[in-house]
Amino acid sequence: MSVLIVGSIALDSIRTPYLAHPRLLGGSASHAAVAASFFNKVRMVGVVGDDFPRRYMELYQRRGIDLQGVQRKAGKTFHWSGEYEVNMNRRRTLNTELGVFETFSPELPVAWRRTPHVLLANIAPALQHHVLDQMERPKFVVADTMDLWLNVALKELLRLLRRVDAFVLNDSEARQLTGEDNVILALRKLHHFGPRFVIIKKGEHGSILSGPDGLFVAPAYPLEKLVDPTGAGDSFVGGMMGYLAGCKGGLARNLRRAIVQGSVVASFCCEGFGLTRTAELSRRDLTARFRRLEAMVSF
Amino acid sequence: MSVLIVGSIALDSIRTPYLAHPRLLGGSASHAAVAASFFNKVRMVGVVGDDFPRRYMELYQRRGIDLQGVQRKAGKTFHWSGEYEVNMNRRRTLNTELGVFETFSPELPVAWRRTPHVLLANIAPALQHHVLDQMERPKFVVADTMDLWLNVALKELLRLLRRVDAFVLNDSEARQLTGEDNVILALRKLHHFGPRFVIIKKGEHGSILSGPDGLFVAPAYPLEKLVDPTGAGDSFVGGMMGYLAGCKGGLARNLRRAIVQGSVVASFCCEGFGLTRTAELSRRDLTARFRRLEAMVSF
Repeated sequence: MSVLIVGSIALDSIRTPYLAHPRLLGGSASHAAVAASFFNKVRMVGVVGDDFPRRYMELYQRRGIDLQGVQRKAGKTFHWSGEYEVNMNRRRTLNTELGVFETFSPELPVAWRRTPHVLLANIAPALQHHVLDQMERPKFVVADTMDLWLNVALKELLRLLRRVDAFVLNDSEARQLTGEDNVILALRKLHHFGPRFVIIKKGEHGSILSGPDGLFVAPAYPLEKLVDPTGAGDSFVGGMMGYLAGCKGGLARNLRRAIVQGSVVASFCCEGFGLTRTAELSRRDLTARFRRLEAMVSF
Repeated sequence: MSVLIVGSIALDSIRTPYLAHPRLLGGSASHAAVAASFFNKVRMVGVVGDDFPRRYMELYQRRGIDLQGVQRKAGKTFHWSGEYEVNMNRRRTLNTELGVFETFSPELPVAWRRTPHVLLANIAPALQHHVLDQMERPKFVVADTMDLWLNVALKELLRLLRRVDAFVLNDSEARQLTGEDNVILALRKLHHFGPRFVIIKKGEHGSILSGPDGLFVAPAYPLEKLVDPTGAGDSFVGGMMGYLAGCKGGLARNLRRAIVQGSVVASFCCEGFGLTRTAELSRRDLTARFRRLEAMVSF
């Protein structure tokens, strides 16, 4: 089964305390789609400008991603510049040029409207709504977000939460949205906004899922070296949805395994700038690390 | 099999943003011994003053703790006053009165010298050495510590690390001792100081064990309400050693389960001031929460 992914396609110029890399392939849709592509057929929805490098299109194609939903418009590709602090836990946006993204309106190929699994990767809530409006009875819809939308599009975001099965956000966003410092209490409040499943990402400390079957405390793969965390959250939801779309059987158990698969892809993502590390992986690499992580948490 | 525990016995006056409690039973030996007592026979080594409340002695006795190694001296019991900040992650010492602790020299009853499991709970490294000097070929020795000893007794602490099987410390202490921000790299450096096993505690984010069999990423039980984290780390090592002392079979697997048991006791400890919540538990409560945690992390 396929998974449909909408989000941003960007060129990222990233500085960490150690290095700087200009115009890497980035954006929530890019990270999520590449991550999902290891597990399933991916249908990507997004927009690029006429400056979008051919090699990045080829990268998508090598990963077998279906690009029918990617529009190419006259103008510049969305460009984000950011900088990480020494401990890599905080990032600062230096510059954002929306380019063709400013007037983007996602249009789904008719044949894609019945895709069962939908990932609304991080993008303006209005665009996430617009994609959902075009879907016909999707089986499982996941929405990701970022702090920006909590600040500038809260109403749209809250309306979206009533339309999705699962909502993914990080711990500081959960705190901001609920006013709760305690993760468990925050999860409970987040369910009141609508979603049956809520996943709070805690970076190197793993993530926590709350659903009808209670809590799942998910580990992160312990990394010796964090090169660039950009896109780790997008890789997480992408890997998760890619894996989930191929599962048979009970949702509760599948979702747990999907979260761990997502966390494994995210760990690889952090080991290189942008998508450089992720793009060179094989399914075998992911399976090997999944098994190592499984062994590291068993008792 | 018994476990021998040396550490501080204190009266703790604790303030959190919500409440204040004067002269609670505290100290590393108290927390560790009570935690261990749910799993095994405990031999406690420490000192109290003549102001030490009878009800606290009775509490130890109800938990079946052998008090032959607890000296009663003329003078005041060690008294610690501290205050927690709103998010409970940082504490500030308001006052420390050493009292009889100032001249304390732990003396082991002769019959205790062959106790196979030894927990050197948080106390001055010189006293931890003094206890080890009296032991005859212990089977498994664990040392805990705190930031204070890194600052005022580093040399003694480093000498101690060459004499123990396992060393337990929290993430900020690990950072301070190794200069490494990354936990995995810190673990590796800590092994160079001597111990075969190193455990880094990360509070609500669980803990991580490094040993000859690789890493164990251990979860913390997710708590809705943190009342008072004082003694959580001592409860963790106490529960761990109490459980471990009763295990048969391979050390690697037993230590993993022991860490999770310790983390369960620690979670209860945080639900009440001082030892109030822990002291009222039964082994059945611990087993039930252990199973719930097991279910929460399985995938």
